[in-house]
Amino acid sequence: MRRTSIRVDPIVRATLIVAAAALLVSTAALAQTRQTAPPGVRASLAHMPPTEARVLADSKPNDWRALDPQNTLYMQLPAGRVVIELAPRFAPQYVANIKKLVREHYFDGLAIERVQDNFVVQWGDPDHSRSLGTAEKTLPAEFIASSKDVPFTPLPDPDTYAPEVGFAGEFPAARDSKIGREWLVHCYGMVGAGRDDDVESGNGSEIYAVIGHAPRQLDRNVALVGRVVDGIELLSSLPRGSGQLGFYTSRERRVPIESIRLAADVPPDQRSHLEVLRTYTRTFTALIEARRNRRDAWYKVPAGRIDVCNVPIPVRSH
Amino acid sequence: MRRTSIRVDPIVRATLIVAAAALLVSTAALAQTRQTAPPGVRASLAHMPPTEARVLADSKPNDWRALDPQNTLYMQLPAGRVVIELAPRFAPQYVANIKKLVREHYFDGLAIERVQDNFVVQWGDPDHSRSLGTAEKTLPAEFIASSKDVPFTPLPDPDTYAPEVGFAGEFPAARDSKIGREWLVHCYGMVGAGRDDDVESGNGSEIYAVIGHAPRQLDRNVALVGRVVDGIELLSSLPRGSGQLGFYTSRERRVPIESIRLAADVPPDQRSHLEVLRTYTRTFTALIEARRNRRDAWYKVPAGRIDVCNVPIPVRSH
Repeated sequence: MRRTSIRVDPIVRATLIVAAAALLVSTAALAQTRQTAPPGVRASLAHMPPTEARVLADSKPNDWRALDPQNTLYMQLPAGRVVIELAPRFAPQYVANIKKLVREHYFDGLAIERVQDNFVVQWGDPDHSRSLGTAEKTLPAEFIASSKDVPFTPLPDPDTYAPEVGFAGEFPAARDSKIGREWLVHCYGMVGAGRDDDVESGNGSEIYAVIGHAPRQLDRNVALVGRVVDGIELLSSLPRGSGQLGFYTSRERRVPIESIRLAADVPPDQRSHLEVLRTYTRTFTALIEARRNRRDAWYKVPAGRIDVCNVPIPVRSH
Repeated sequence: MRRTSIRVDPIVRATLIVAAAALLVSTAALAQTRQTAPPGVRASLAHMPPTEARVLADSKPNDWRALDPQNTLYMQLPAGRVVIELAPRFAPQYVANIKKLVREHYFDGLAIERVQDNFVVQWGDPDHSRSLGTAEKTLPAEFIASSKDVPFTPLPDPDTYAPEVGFAGEFPAARDSKIGREWLVHCYGMVGAGRDDDVESGNGSEIYAVIGHAPRQLDRNVALVGRVVDGIELLSSLPRGSGQLGFYTSRERRVPIESIRLAADVPPDQRSHLEVLRTYTRTFTALIEARRNRRDAWYKVPAGRIDVCNVPIPVRSH
């Protein structure tokens, strides 16, 4: 199966669905046969920037990268697998501790305990009964980093919260060049590690994923450790908790975690074979532009701007 | 029951929950007894801006308004009631047409047909078999309005998409004072009317609600007709559709709509008794400030900024 997470956004009436599906099919077909696409199609491209679908169809194999099994987690829920890419460059000690917890099977049999609408899903040990094993009990506050020796693809538009936003390596990020600092930002699907009031009280045993409008007020206040690259809908569609902060009020409501594994520890034939578009490629830059100014027939007033959390990083299976 | 939709945001470890619940209870108690609160509490307020919980606890009865039954919809789903406040000042013809459809029971027995993760839930007539009755088949594009004779509470921070954002009457909105234009913006929970490519092809028979990061690229491209003020979690937690654009691929997956009614047509004892905080009050302004700079013990780096879609309009039952 070849699946590309193209987001097609228009609010269509249902009558359009067949046509839309046909369009996607034809786009996919074009991707495979574009050497022989009719001249008219190529000529029309010269007159306007391409759409998202066209940009992705025109991407090259090298624009994509496979996930690193040493920095990829599989969370197995009753409904399926959630795939998380870790961010060791931004939260090295958190990531190392989470990997230690995972390798000692800390999360197996624990639960999703909190689902707060338009905010986060959180999982860990609601009964506080499990030992952290050899993992650290507290960690330094890895909330803001020195500017990284990784490509930063900036967005041209103003951001409400930070001097500059864009993509640092694999993740949406902000930076302040004046002080040489970068930090990951809380877009939909980003994964972080809970803490108590003390900034050094976290250890990666309580983890959350953003399932609502980006809670950017959390930026620089907590360690972001990665991003859900596949299966976010298994988290975002869970029943909301009825307790304070969205915690489930009864044990029965909790969603059991069958296991969390490092991809490298899973036999190759059982791994998810996912590729992520590299953010420092011309293809990704073209994708940003296609989303800043939509050329689909449905859009009449292209925004001309884009929020960092409205640029999904495409993922496909291979 | 007195319920206030205070959003308490910190990513806490589960150990904090009992304490957090106790704090909320004590805040509620303070709201009822603040005349006799210890002097130390009042004195401490002089030294720092109040928290959100304090702002809401200190609100006055007149800061709140009841929903207008003539502009409130109840969508009855198997799981419960979704309450939608309509926006006649911004989309008068759409709202009138939707009310006509509702009063002729157009939606009863139809279905939620589309749930696209991090985007929208959409409902209407997936089989295209039902008559629109006496409702209009097409409507003018009510996407942008002349500046309204309603209070506009601006936010002080830059917005990625618009020259100025804030709250126009009951809704999050943007404005461009130079050209005297205002428009509603696509925050989480906002409700709009689908259309085909033609901007005048909509009629309010296909409706969507935003359940993800604000898709602000839709602003000025489609008619926003209101906002979900209660029950959004009944929409946001639905299973995602597996078809293109998140449409359900089989009839069985669709979520039936038992009925949609205008609150005014429902017997008073069966109505939802909800109050919404007025957005042009000092209380709301103080709430914005409390969210721009969080004073909760958990926050160490107050953002000092806020995005219009990160300011929820508080709702409570009475």
